[in-house]
Amino acid sequence: MDENKRITTVEEMEEDSRKLHDRACEVCGETWVERAESQKNHCKFGEGGICCRNCSMGPCRISPKAPRGICGADAHAIAARNYLRAISAGTASHSDHAREILHVLHHTKAEGPYIVRDEQKLINLAHEWQIATEGRDIYDIAREVAEVGLMEFGRPFGEMRFPGRAPQERQELWRKEQIWPRAIDREIATAMHMTHMGNSADPEALIRQGLRTSISNGWGGSMLGTEITDILFGTPTVRETEGNLGVLEHDQVNIVVHGHDPVFSEAIVAATELKETLDYCKAKGIKGINVVGLCCTANEVAMRHGVRMAGNFLQQENAILTGACDMMCVDIQCIFPSLPQLAQCFHTKFVTSSPIARIPGADHYEVTPENAFDTAKDLVKLAIDNYSNRDESKVWIPERKQKAIVGYPTEQIIKHLDNITNSHVDTVGSYRPAIDAIKAGVLRGAVAIVGCNNPRIRPDFSHYEIITELFRNDILVVATGCAAQLATKAGLMNKEAKEFCGAGLKRVCELMDIPPILHMGACVDISRMMRLAAGIAEDWGVDMTQIPVVGCAPEWMSEKAVSIANYVVSSGLDVYLGIEPQVNGSDQMMNLITEGTRDIVGAGFIINTDPKVLVKNIIDGIEAKRAALGI
Amino acid sequence: MDENKRITTVEEMEEDSRKLHDRACEVCGETWVERAESQKNHCKFGEGGICCRNCSMGPCRISPKAPRGICGADAHAIAARNYLRAISAGTASHSDHAREILHVLHHTKAEGPYIVRDEQKLINLAHEWQIATEGRDIYDIAREVAEVGLMEFGRPFGEMRFPGRAPQERQELWRKEQIWPRAIDREIATAMHMTHMGNSADPEALIRQGLRTSISNGWGGSMLGTEITDILFGTPTVRETEGNLGVLEHDQVNIVVHGHDPVFSEAIVAATELKETLDYCKAKGIKGINVVGLCCTANEVAMRHGVRMAGNFLQQENAILTGACDMMCVDIQCIFPSLPQLAQCFHTKFVTSSPIARIPGADHYEVTPENAFDTAKDLVKLAIDNYSNRDESKVWIPERKQKAIVGYPTEQIIKHLDNITNSHVDTVGSYRPAIDAIKAGVLRGAVAIVGCNNPRIRPDFSHYEIITELFRNDILVVATGCAAQLATKAGLMNKEAKEFCGAGLKRVCELMDIPPILHMGACVDISRMMRLAAGIAEDWGVDMTQIPVVGCAPEWMSEKAVSIANYVVSSGLDVYLGIEPQVNGSDQMMNLITEGTRDIVGAGFIINTDPKVLVKNIIDGIEAKRAALGI
Repeated sequence: MDENKRITTVEEMEEDSRKLHDRACEVCGETWVERAESQKNHCKFGEGGICCRNCSMGPCRISPKAPRGICGADAHAIAARNYLRAISAGTASHSDHAREILHVLHHTKAEGPYIVRDEQKLINLAHEWQIATEGRDIYDIAREVAEVGLMEFGRPFGEMRFPGRAPQERQELWRKEQIWPRAIDREIATAMHMTHMGNSADPEALIRQGLRTSISNGWGGSMLGTEITDILFGTPTVRETEGNLGVLEHDQVNIVVHGHDPVFSEAIVAATELKETLDYCKAKGIKGINVVGLCCTANEVAMRHGVRMAGNFLQQENAILTGACDMMCVDIQCIFPSLPQLAQCFHTKFVTSSPIARIPGADHYEVTPENAFDTAKDLVKLAIDNYSNRDESKVWIPERKQKAIVGYPTEQIIKHLDNITNSHVDTVGSYRPAIDAIKAGVLRGAVAIVGCNNPRIRPDFSHYEIITELFRNDILVVATGCAAQLATKAGLMNKEAKEFCGAGLKRVCELMDIPPILHMGACVDISRMMRLAAGIAEDWGVDMTQIPVVGCAPEWMSEKAVSIANYVVSSGLDVYLGIEPQVNGSDQMMNLITEGTRDIVGAGFIINTDPKVLVKNIIDGIEAKRAALGI
Repeated sequence: MDENKRITTVEEMEEDSRKLHDRACEVCGETWVERAESQKNHCKFGEGGICCRNCSMGPCRISPKAPRGICGADAHAIAARNYLRAISAGTASHSDHAREILHVLHHTKAEGPYIVRDEQKLINLAHEWQIATEGRDIYDIAREVAEVGLMEFGRPFGEMRFPGRAPQERQELWRKEQIWPRAIDREIATAMHMTHMGNSADPEALIRQGLRTSISNGWGGSMLGTEITDILFGTPTVRETEGNLGVLEHDQVNIVVHGHDPVFSEAIVAATELKETLDYCKAKGIKGINVVGLCCTANEVAMRHGVRMAGNFLQQENAILTGACDMMCVDIQCIFPSLPQLAQCFHTKFVTSSPIARIPGADHYEVTPENAFDTAKDLVKLAIDNYSNRDESKVWIPERKQKAIVGYPTEQIIKHLDNITNSHVDTVGSYRPAIDAIKAGVLRGAVAIVGCNNPRIRPDFSHYEIITELFRNDILVVATGCAAQLATKAGLMNKEAKEFCGAGLKRVCELMDIPPILHMGACVDISRMMRLAAGIAEDWGVDMTQIPVVGCAPEWMSEKAVSIANYVVSSGLDVYLGIEPQVNGSDQMMNLITEGTRDIVGAGFIINTDPKVLVKNIIDGIEAKRAALGI
């Protein structure tokens, strides 16, 4: 197969973006492209992490002429404090998201609107937490599970229980190093306290609190978010979808859901399927309603409903710029505050739904578990009404889109592995077949590609370069977030993509009937990847640091990503970063994040902004892990 | 009395500081004075609050040429996010402090080392929280009170209970405005989430979360900190002490306790009183052990033990520079990371005790409720051993010190008011006599002077100017923190200071037998001031916004101060600031903090960096409140 015919190249994506962008400049002045240009050059103190604004004596900035802030904090203290605050904010974001989901679980009842969709997962979790299930109503169990889950945030004594899911060696290490988190919100508060004026100035102490806080995210908030979302809306299964702006339709009402928390978007999807809504649409003479997703909300609804994905982070303005977006409904996180202004240049209704993300110029409909479905129904009708306001002269929908196979939580991966297991001689329900393939060298290893886009580097290019090079080197890719969406847009996330792979990976794809890149969900679902890596290590009988599995965030930008990268490292997996964390004003901090954490948790960061070098580093890293295992 | 003879002027304080500072330059290079100089001029983006570092696409800075960050956030969104993060960090600091205190309460037992010292206060709190006390062991009650208190941090459902202490009108307002906090750590996490990239960009929404978070501090964490500290170490009573560096002794072992959390310093004080320690000291031929305090730890131990106060925030390096500090023991907050380096230029042992405040170069002895007293005993012996290492050629202790009367929690104020009440005709235990004095115009009102020092303005000068001008205008002052220590150093915090007051305030001082400025404690004890203002409003039968009582932070610098200022405003009291909050890059934010909050909670900030203008503003504000009340 000719690669250039099959896939959408980054150049082609850029061509579409450019056209939309030119329209933006005509119609309403600017997109992120102009803003990124106007923000050049970035402040070197900020970039280096050595600007301190943690009290009003400052800001203080570290330079050869001013090696200490007014209080005496040096570059290392300042960079470490800023870094820990980023972890704190990232952890707070994922965890607050999970808290909302737990409250929704607490609201479930048999008559809806929110019900338990994956009863078995709920019961498994109840068993894990020693919650009685025998003879109990499933909604009784749900309430108790929600209550126990919510205590992970604010437990006044002792420590979190969810990290007890990690392999034994990890647990022992976290205890030995005293980084087992006590409670999610407490670690966030402790991090904020330690970084307050006149507290910790020791980078290692601050990094250790960073690891602890991040574990409360990866093996706490994020993992709860994933688990409870599956219980509420169903554990994702493999399904086909499409991606890129070509999923917007000329002759249908286009509703774009955007953000991260699926509670609202699930209600929107449900509302569009109601007979009442469809009748309303029909009565207006409109062919149908087309819900598509942006960012991680897209990943959530794609995995559970096959809802198509309009694009990733830096494409959010483009969706409005098509002129064909009748309504954009956002929940939380990664939402450009520029969107309402942009929407006003078109007919697009821009709707915010969460008290966490209030944006001036938006129509705010506060969504609660009680009103979500009614609100969604009203909003979908408003979107239908708004269809007639579309100005066809302003409409241009790029044609490009690609097919994708999504929905590979660990349960689905195990299922695919079971399919190739000889159940007469082998145990089913294990990662053994994958481990055997790695041991045999058919697969060299696996890489979790995650994270955002970032205008600091050419958007989507690093994702593309790294994924395709890993394919060629027989390295299986698992992906979430904006990275998964690049793969979708490019046409790499489907079974035909095996053609771009080395012989080994291609054979594995054929045998297991999978694409060479497995879509594991939203960024909160990187917790699924931790479960996957933990499962592989456990079935292999080695520590998580030993398996040839690593993480990579080629284009990360958010504080959530800083927290994630730290919990992946805390879990023993190296993380390859294509964007440098903003601490390079401190050599101690650069050393701590790349090498120092290895002495604590056995893993660290490898950083390179050139994707060609970074992917080589990854391959070398994986080969080194293999060599150490004697395979 | 001749004012110039009685008091220590700011000029005299500066003279001592200058001498010590000159020694510093000889011996070890620098103090905050050089560092403040080297940090000039501060970054205008940072000062204006319009530099955003909340994701790694930036930093983005707002200017006429770049009116939005890359994501589209404008000056208002960025300034509001930075401001909310400051409130979050400040709240986390006070609240984490309170959490530690609650854990100590949970550890109390009859045989010690930590015991319940104010049983009545514990029982009162238990009654307030509907905890059974009848026939129960006091330590059983203590444990349950600690458990209930700790739930204020992490309650998974509902809302905090402690703000229910506020007057009825405030409670109703907080509910109506939806700013009643849910749980302390949750509000901190929510604040961090809202300010994460792609969430709230609406300054009013961010300010409202700031108010809610701050209430969880003022009527939550800080109030718990104060209440439980009183239960553990005794509610302060009126006692005499001294202040300024002259309290260091030539012929005694000088141990300086510094920070905020009294758990460690209480143990140090106790250790110095042991026969074993005194014998050890005697055997070395040393006259005695002299424990003195710095910053808020000083306020804590002064109020409970009469321990003398060496000075406030910008005097912390001076204590070491005397060459006579044999050991400095620090706990948390406002500790210069420069201190260990400075200590190394002398013989001073510098000891950190908390995992929250690790400082490179310090000797770290991690203090827990279990080991605190043993650790303190060991450390005091080390300090005694270190006395012989003092290099007399490097010793210069300024002579100046002043007598002060400290220890006026609300209970003491009520007691003094009761003394002037005719118990045959009036109710005792009320603020009525004070209200009558205000109504009669003998007192014009009261001002709470709080906060830090800040090199942005002449240290201690604003405190001094404002306090003395209020005295002259018959306005009673209550003080905490570094402001209280300036008053001590100056000699304003004693009964003779009535001579500097107008006739009305002088008469009140004589009648009540009090100084014209009442020492209410550490910065965490500003919660006492809220109880005082609430009590006055309740006894008066008016809303807290109506009473001629305001807050003033002339020289604030920390994020705690931002949180405090917000909870004072949330409580309905105007706050006069001598340092501008760093949001002036946004006119919307400047308007919100000065005027916008008035529409929500009925109070706001008045800002002026000139103390002479600020105090005039205060007096005008108080007179306006009086006029509105028709008095």
